[in-house]
Amino acid sequence: MTETLSPHPNVASALKALEGRKTDHVFFVACGGSLSIMYPAKYMLDQLSSSLPSDVYNAAEFTHRAPKRLTSDSIVILCSMTGTTAETVAAAEFARKAGAMTIALSVEPQSPLGGVSDHLVSFEAPYTTGVPIDAKNSNYARIYQIVLGLARHYDGVEHMGALMHSLEALQSVIDKAQDVLAPRFNQYAPHFAKQEVIYTMASGASYGAAYSFANCVLMEMQWINSYPIHANEFFHGAFEVLDQSRCYILMKGLDDTRPLEDRAEAFLLRFGSADNILVLDAADFDFIGVDEMFRGALAPLVFFDTLWRFAYRLAELRDHEMMEARRYMKKLNDY
Amino acid sequence: MTETLSPHPNVASALKALEGRKTDHVFFVACGGSLSIMYPAKYMLDQLSSSLPSDVYNAAEFTHRAPKRLTSDSIVILCSMTGTTAETVAAAEFARKAGAMTIALSVEPQSPLGGVSDHLVSFEAPYTTGVPIDAKNSNYARIYQIVLGLARHYDGVEHMGALMHSLEALQSVIDKAQDVLAPRFNQYAPHFAKQEVIYTMASGASYGAAYSFANCVLMEMQWINSYPIHANEFFHGAFEVLDQSRCYILMKGLDDTRPLEDRAEAFLLRFGSADNILVLDAADFDFIGVDEMFRGALAPLVFFDTLWRFAYRLAELRDHEMMEARRYMKKLNDY
Repeated sequence: MTETLSPHPNVASALKALEGRKTDHVFFVACGGSLSIMYPAKYMLDQLSSSLPSDVYNAAEFTHRAPKRLTSDSIVILCSMTGTTAETVAAAEFARKAGAMTIALSVEPQSPLGGVSDHLVSFEAPYTTGVPIDAKNSNYARIYQIVLGLARHYDGVEHMGALMHSLEALQSVIDKAQDVLAPRFNQYAPHFAKQEVIYTMASGASYGAAYSFANCVLMEMQWINSYPIHANEFFHGAFEVLDQSRCYILMKGLDDTRPLEDRAEAFLLRFGSADNILVLDAADFDFIGVDEMFRGALAPLVFFDTLWRFAYRLAELRDHEMMEARRYMKKLNDY
Repeated sequence: MTETLSPHPNVASALKALEGRKTDHVFFVACGGSLSIMYPAKYMLDQLSSSLPSDVYNAAEFTHRAPKRLTSDSIVILCSMTGTTAETVAAAEFARKAGAMTIALSVEPQSPLGGVSDHLVSFEAPYTTGVPIDAKNSNYARIYQIVLGLARHYDGVEHMGALMHSLEALQSVIDKAQDVLAPRFNQYAPHFAKQEVIYTMASGASYGAAYSFANCVLMEMQWINSYPIHANEFFHGAFEVLDQSRCYILMKGLDDTRPLEDRAEAFLLRFGSADNILVLDAADFDFIGVDEMFRGALAPLVFFDTLWRFAYRLAELRDHEMMEARRYMKKLNDY
């Protein structure tokens, strides 16, 4: 008999506050890399809950748009790694003023975001400290627990145990995927390192990983032009820039939108050059220990964590720092 | 006394079907350029309706994701210019099977999309025929009428008359804006025509125009690399590629998210070169006859219609056809 694992204490405490609470809307609100995890969170909620509509908004868009659906019956879920992102802190304050319940994810419970939110859910991130973490303690892991808690409370859907057990197995999936992908990364890195433009592509649960890699790694850390293209939107305009010289990173996940990514792959390989099309296929990963139901949701963590190594290879070859090379972020404080 | 203008007969007929109908979710579903008008439609609904949650989805994402909120209490609003977009037709069929009410926008009522939808709302588009239209007959104009009809029926918010009168004045706003922008377009075109990468940027009601211009004009028609960057997301990664040589088209609208675009402008002009930053500011347009309330919603039509001329200037200078130059779209039929 398997031991039943409970969600993280911070998550459990936030979920406890749902008791007796009517909720008719969930807002997922953040900026940049933290916003990227909101896409798969909404994907999961969309597929599990018939009672909770939801929106994903950049934090400044959220406060200025001021959607009428934001009321005391809303739950607003926010995330900022450091807990200092000004727009996200403002969004939490804005949501609170509207009477909404706020749940904030941050590495720093004592941060400004923690200070203005009803519930703080802490997580771990390796990218600031350089100390490896277990993926079961990542922002993705925590937000999925929150989403499942909502689905359990409002829709009577019970999957928390399966998620918690899957999360226990996740780091090992990532470690093994690194080994599978290392030769591919070595093969593609020298050529990709010379590019002015590298597109990323995905759909469904994996779109956030494509968003994050394009914006926060290629553009932010490597100053390489990019665009996270939705795998089907690709066919409605963006695909016309594809030729033999153009480079793409395509993520093929295991969620229900995989056929969209399959179609994009076939097209990329038909009209692009195989050397320029780096496909990460979650079907190649060994998901042993991860419940079938959560393989689609957890694939983007594997993509993002493994691609991180690819980014370091690019940085080395380009002689361009990863964590230090910024023109503006953390260098300026007056914008 | 001003005559009260009614919505387009197709819209009126769709709205009549709301009588006695419970609705608890609106899905805006399309692909590419048609998807781009769904962003401002949702923006308008978000700001007017406290009773109707909504989602914007690429059509293939919608059918594969299969959100649990899609039920017989949903309204699914679709758009395809030709009415033949396979993913959008499939989405209409999928929605219908779920028992949802479907309202489709198309230039061609007799199209496959028209055939599988409960209500067909026709509109006019200049880009296929080359014949100029009046913007009051555009897809934007029609979808805003639908949104206002929903807000009237479900939230008791009555703005239809003000919209209809504003739409009467719109074409003249666009024509005058062309004159204002012509010298700027002439000034920027020679330099922009030489670029490998041109970013577009906007937020709120104008984001769809940035999306459409990046995907369906720059990438699709001119094979120029692009990315429609959200004006605040810009500061959370993408801005690091900005330097003196990088080109951007920024739209500054008149909706409540304008401060986000103001901030982006200040940053672009501080660290980019003014020659590379083409700012379209809706505050420079003469919106006479357009109700204050709808200036934010109608600014993106002015942006997109005026930028169309800029695109033709680029095409000329690049010696690259606008409507004919495609590698794949309408050239292949097996992808």
